[in-house]
Amino acid sequence: MAITVVGSIAFDTVATPLGRRERMVGGAATHFALAASFFDEVRVVGPVGDDFDADARAVLETRRTNTDDVEHVAGGKSFFWAGEYGWDLNSRVTHDTQLGVFETFRPKLSAASRQADVLFLANIQPGLQRDVLEQCEQPRFVALDSMNLWIDIARADLVDVIGRVDCLILNDAELRQLTGKPSLLAAAREALSWGPSAIVAKQGEYGAALLTAGGFFALPAYPLETVVDPTGAGDTFAGGFVGYLSRHLDQLGDEATLRRAMAYGTALASFNVEEFGTDRVVRLEAGELHERIDGLQQMTHLEPTREQEFQT
Amino acid sequence: MAITVVGSIAFDTVATPLGRRERMVGGAATHFALAASFFDEVRVVGPVGDDFDADARAVLETRRTNTDDVEHVAGGKSFFWAGEYGWDLNSRVTHDTQLGVFETFRPKLSAASRQADVLFLANIQPGLQRDVLEQCEQPRFVALDSMNLWIDIARADLVDVIGRVDCLILNDAELRQLTGKPSLLAAAREALSWGPSAIVAKQGEYGAALLTAGGFFALPAYPLETVVDPTGAGDTFAGGFVGYLSRHLDQLGDEATLRRAMAYGTALASFNVEEFGTDRVVRLEAGELHERIDGLQQMTHLEPTREQEFQT
Repeated sequence: MAITVVGSIAFDTVATPLGRRERMVGGAATHFALAASFFDEVRVVGPVGDDFDADARAVLETRRTNTDDVEHVAGGKSFFWAGEYGWDLNSRVTHDTQLGVFETFRPKLSAASRQADVLFLANIQPGLQRDVLEQCEQPRFVALDSMNLWIDIARADLVDVIGRVDCLILNDAELRQLTGKPSLLAAAREALSWGPSAIVAKQGEYGAALLTAGGFFALPAYPLETVVDPTGAGDTFAGGFVGYLSRHLDQLGDEATLRRAMAYGTALASFNVEEFGTDRVVRLEAGELHERIDGLQQMTHLEPTREQEFQT
Repeated sequence: MAITVVGSIAFDTVATPLGRRERMVGGAATHFALAASFFDEVRVVGPVGDDFDADARAVLETRRTNTDDVEHVAGGKSFFWAGEYGWDLNSRVTHDTQLGVFETFRPKLSAASRQADVLFLANIQPGLQRDVLEQCEQPRFVALDSMNLWIDIARADLVDVIGRVDCLILNDAELRQLTGKPSLLAAAREALSWGPSAIVAKQGEYGAALLTAGGFFALPAYPLETVVDPTGAGDTFAGGFVGYLSRHLDQLGDEATLRRAMAYGTALASFNVEEFGTDRVVRLEAGELHERIDGLQQMTHLEPTREQEFQT
């Protein structure tokens, strides 16, 4: 068992219409681990600098996350991002990005991390994602995230590594850009033809869609009165999705299992955005999570047709 | 029985990445009627000019639509719109708008139109929507659409008329603009406080959400390999939604009925965008429609939780 995640561990400074917070623990691997640790042991692989203190490590170790493979680069600084969200939280501007120790990161997995059944390749350079894949022994399920930067400058590498994973998780606009297909269905069909058996298209405030050879499923975002900080929603979704599947590795071909994984990802992401940074998910309890899963089921329920409603 | 719709009857010239078509019959009332006529008699109230010939009228009269209240303004020209859609069909540019006879339109309803049980006020000036409402005798269900223009220049009139209808159907961005609330849930709560019992937020390619005092429901758009022409999708949705409800006027307070109406709106809109203008919906048959309703039910189905999946 266990899930290995390879990606960024960062400090974020975030301004939103509802406030501003300085230097919170963030990064893709952090948000993923906080969500996935509900389901299984998570092993985080990523670099940090001297500024990553005991308080920051404690956040990362929430629930059962193992930080033995977090690489401390002496004399270095952790990845730092500062940004600001607009009125409706759908647009954001980056004010500062300092890669720090992430710039020269070359993932080295310990024996324990290499043996994980489940691997999540968070958004890093596609060549490094492939290096990680080659270090892993026999993962039963591998999911991968990426971003527009790598589509722009390393598309061939990205397509190659996508061909080696089970599941691609990407924003819908990036999926269109990657495949050159304007329709989500056509874009997913193209990406499925490269090798993965499932494509998850993240749609921000609209939720997410799951596309497999056998079907299409779409789930809205859990509706919230107030969104405070959308940072990390996508990685939190991935943590819930991949985490749930790590407990159901014998049912990966089962559409109902994949759909339920979508619901866990969606519910976890909804908690993540309710407060700044990791604040809400750090203290989230399983009962609260299950309430939102039930809520999502009710909010999307459409009665099957029992008879022809009319004929013209 | 019968549904009265008041709105534009137009000619559209549309360019999309897949082609270009000149002077097709379009307009909000037309797209609405083509969809709603699956369910009930539809009476269209709107002005046309000398250019509205027998072929155009035949399109409008598809299925059981009654055009007795279509007002022919001698010497006038019909509303004309020309526009072009971008690569992913989500953005569009207007090249030409000629209001023609629509500029001086003052709706006058015949006795038959005034007695309809169901009224749809398509996107026209809010003051005219109120005039129509005052002409109607005792409609059992009234739905209203609007647009950003009226929020900008006639917000007080719009809020007033919204207070007199049962259902507001609006794009989600417009609903936010109208209420000044960034969250869909908060925006809908505000609009519900003005009087309607249901708010439908249209979300374009992402589908639509239904918000009532009792609940939240979201339905994705029916996924299509190719979208040819999105023009009229919103009004076609409204025609399916309102049309279905016109057959279930005793169950308007029933959440399952409203959800099924959302499914009919969604399915009809999906056919509308598959070909230019009204081409696809004109020849659509009930059996095809029901197949997509079943499809939507399957694509959104999430099994209820039978037990706690885990406890942490």
